Amino acid sequence: MQPSQYFSGMSRRNLLSLIGLTAGTAAMYQAMTSLGLAVESGYKGPVKLEGDPKGASVLILGAGLAGMTAALELRQAGYKVKILEYNNRSGGRNWTLRGGDTYTELGGATQKCDFDEGLYINPGPWRIPYHHNGLLAYCRRLGVTLEPFQQLNHNAFLHSSKAFGGKPQRVRDIKIDFQGHVSELLAKVAHTGKLEGGVTKEDQEMLVEALRSWGALDKDYAYTKSIANSEFRGFAKDPGGGLGAAPVPSDPIALTDILSSGLWGSLANFALYEFQTTMFQPVGGIDMIGKAFTKEVGDLITYNAKVSKIHQDDKGVTVTYEDVQKPGTMAEEKADWCICTIPLTILSQIEINVGAPMQAAIEAVPYASSVKVGLQFKRRFWEQDELIFGGVSYTDLPITQISYPSTSFNTNGKGVLLGAYTWNGPHSYEFTSMAPEERVKRAVEYGTMIHPQYKDEFENGISMAWHRSPFTLGCAGDWTEEARKEHYDNLCQIDGRIVLAGEHASYIPAWMEGAILSSLDAITRLHQRVVAG
Amino acid sequence: MQPSQYFSGMSRRNLLSLIGLTAGTAAMYQAMTSLGLAVESGYKGPVKLEGDPKGASVLILGAGLAGMTAALELRQAGYKVKILEYNNRSGGRNWTLRGGDTYTELGGATQKCDFDEGLYINPGPWRIPYHHNGLLAYCRRLGVTLEPFQQLNHNAFLHSSKAFGGKPQRVRDIKIDFQGHVSELLAKVAHTGKLEGGVTKEDQEMLVEALRSWGALDKDYAYTKSIANSEFRGFAKDPGGGLGAAPVPSDPIALTDILSSGLWGSLANFALYEFQTTMFQPVGGIDMIGKAFTKEVGDLITYNAKVSKIHQDDKGVTVTYEDVQKPGTMAEEKADWCICTIPLTILSQIEINVGAPMQAAIEAVPYASSVKVGLQFKRRFWEQDELIFGGVSYTDLPITQISYPSTSFNTNGKGVLLGAYTWNGPHSYEFTSMAPEERVKRAVEYGTMIHPQYKDEFENGISMAWHRSPFTLGCAGDWTEEARKEHYDNLCQIDGRIVLAGEHASYIPAWMEGAILSSLDAITRLHQRVVAG
Repeated sequence: MQPSQYFSGMSRRNLLSLIGLTAGTAAMYQAMTSLGLAVESGYKGPVKLEGDPKGASVLILGAGLAGMTAALELRQAGYKVKILEYNNRSGGRNWTLRGGDTYTELGGATQKCDFDEGLYINPGPWRIPYHHNGLLAYCRRLGVTLEPFQQLNHNAFLHSSKAFGGKPQRVRDIKIDFQGHVSELLAKVAHTGKLEGGVTKEDQEMLVEALRSWGALDKDYAYTKSIANSEFRGFAKDPGGGLGAAPVPSDPIALTDILSSGLWGSLANFALYEFQTTMFQPVGGIDMIGKAFTKEVGDLITYNAKVSKIHQDDKGVTVTYEDVQKPGTMAEEKADWCICTIPLTILSQIEINVGAPMQAAIEAVPYASSVKVGLQFKRRFWEQDELIFGGVSYTDLPITQISYPSTSFNTNGKGVLLGAYTWNGPHSYEFTSMAPEERVKRAVEYGTMIHPQYKDEFENGISMAWHRSPFTLGCAGDWTEEARKEHYDNLCQIDGRIVLAGEHASYIPAWMEGAILSSLDAITRLHQRVVAG
Repeated sequence: MQPSQYFSGMSRRNLLSLIGLTAGTAAMYQAMTSLGLAVESGYKGPVKLEGDPKGASVLILGAGLAGMTAALELRQAGYKVKILEYNNRSGGRNWTLRGGDTYTELGGATQKCDFDEGLYINPGPWRIPYHHNGLLAYCRRLGVTLEPFQQLNHNAFLHSSKAFGGKPQRVRDIKIDFQGHVSELLAKVAHTGKLEGGVTKEDQEMLVEALRSWGALDKDYAYTKSIANSEFRGFAKDPGGGLGAAPVPSDPIALTDILSSGLWGSLANFALYEFQTTMFQPVGGIDMIGKAFTKEVGDLITYNAKVSKIHQDDKGVTVTYEDVQKPGTMAEEKADWCICTIPLTILSQIEINVGAPMQAAIEAVPYASSVKVGLQFKRRFWEQDELIFGGVSYTDLPITQISYPSTSFNTNGKGVLLGAYTWNGPHSYEFTSMAPEERVKRAVEYGTMIHPQYKDEFENGISMAWHRSPFTLGCAGDWTEEARKEHYDNLCQIDGRIVLAGEHASYIPAWMEGAILSSLDAITRLHQRVVAG
């Protein structure tokens, strides 16, 4: 099957006949299944670049996921491929920090990661939604072993420094109590038949029954303390075994307290399509993906190559770069075509002779600010003391969230938390402005307000402020709706011999899937042009 | 720390001082944390059986989790321990079927499991809630590696043969659309300030804002087709990369259709305390737990020992059993005390001289009927075609549910589904009455109505009808509230030299935690009696 854009003007029925004719009924069946039951994805199966490129050469700028996807597929299709990469490693933002790694940010501060063996933090992307078909397909094809990533953990915390005396609340209490109170309020209206909005009497009766089940209401449609209700929100004392083991029901939190706490605002983080179960992470660190790509295309990469100029003319593209290991040493690379995956923050500072529309687009996209802090602790106290196994706690403190490792569950030994993860806003900028060790110190101070064990158990930490990354100057393309309307298509169009790719050239910015789908689309169009020419 | 029953008459403050005095402040801190923030559990830390049993002997009947927990702890406390087990293996219902295994049920039908290497089905318990502290502690102590078990998968199916033309619906569509419609209806009432039930005007205003966020409503409090709304329920066409990649919003399901489908009834399965994220399973099969216990106490077990009589007098307990490998060969085992974990279905048929209250209790508990069917398929079509990674689909068909494997995600190769899992009710009895191969055949037929790929991809299957198990004659103790009131304490009291343990002697029947907590309570009380005597 071909990427969807091939079929944009074609009805589903025609598409199915076409597949049936060319690939037989087994393929048609699979296509029907995926078109009928599954959502239409930007990824429709392995890209097929048919037709002879006749020895055409492609120079790819950037050895992140977009660049390496392009390299993998284009070499396979018969192109001569080379990659230039500014960093001394491949993967781009697909990156994992482990003990012994060092990282120097803009401003010159160098951090050395002191994590124990086997522990890591993913400073960039870290989780994979179940519907990111392109990425999942490459993981399957390249043998990247996945494990579930816990996003929603009912036993993690929602915390507001201004509510409940600063005491963290369990996600399940806020989630289930809010649902219960809402159900009670609506059931009581519907029960009297007073519900407006065109709901029939019959539907109101069914609604009341549905709310009773869904909201854990009692026979009088009240959300009240009871064993039945505690079967959802948990008990004050759990059921046990033997004598004296009867469960004791727990007290629901009052609606007024939930409302004024604002903690309900975090519930959307678990319900969003992008964050729904089942999510994944690679076993061993997110960079297992980049490493798997590198195994395929690593021989094509020139590292430490800082591009300073991209020039195209009738005959081809010439890229000028500096070998950053020998400062001042410039070199050139030429090819028939160029796929540029350099982040727009950097690309907008590089001389490139593209048309005004693409140039304007390159300059139109600000990059999100994000800070992550990884903290190593002597023991997995969040599991042992608080029964929090994976998942995310959200807080109104500047650290925004604490994420617990989704691996090595229930083991003895040390563990690394994501102790802060900010995304834009003043907290991101504040953390970015700090020295790396200060970020770690602050993450520990704030975290102690949620997990007092931090104080005794903390060992070491490392921080990543993406606006200080020399390679991206930010975290990801941060499109506004207006900018997208004006510039997005201009950014993605092939300009002469140059086409851009990367998460910034997608509708899924900041996600690995965006980088991959953008790359597949770019090479598909480029290939069409090459074989047509 | 000591099990909770030691402290039933003691205030928390006293408990904390006691811990502080004997174990130092670090232990006190941990105790405070777990008593303060966590739910009070039936498990409070490793059992401490202090005091000399002076060479007392204990005979344990049954080498399931309850029996092996007792054996492990009692031997460590200085007892002479032996275990008699009817089956030819340990673990009891903690059991995994793999390729090459055979199983003969009552009636004589023998099945051989034909699964490929690495594939398995857990016929009995299969998942571990995050708050089953006792079991989790033993897993940590005995080195059982855990991985997340997916219960809630937003992309699994809810299916009614009588709704939506029999077409399965995605969990996320039912879940999010129901929540959205409920939010809209309530927000519209609250917005006009007409909400009754003592909700203040200020709370009504906050409620409207909360519902807008939680229910994905638009600015007019409507739950309608939009990109914003599709960020929760998913898109008709997912966002992609490059050109033509804009997302297309999806159509919410109308409330009336959700209500009349009855599919909302399955949502509770994901919200219950017992089924909330994060759940676990051992890597490689649930019997990794039983095997880990067996590594500790396997030397104490006599297998193939079918108990026919349990007799106690002033001096001790004598248990008569048949060696089922040499039919008719009877033997005796004597001890000072007896811990009997034999399921009540079996025990009620064995001669045992306990008092009338315990005898009545033994006869008072019916056992749940449960059937499971494991099905091997040529490929993991649920992942590849339908993007269902783990989790459970619920249906009104007799198979009740289909559960997808929570391991080896996104790999090529074969897979085993739980193709039916019934619990009581007519479907359980109907399946139980069938020959094993008929159960498999029917599970495939029904499953095909949800996953048409079954037809082409099915390879082989195996079925377990618990009421036909020679070792349990049912799945688990099925207490009614009335029976529990009248008989539960009598069942758990020490009767002379005999005490019962197992999931049936707990408030968590059918769960492994119930077996373990029951056992810990029984041995703690028995030990008190021994050292006091």
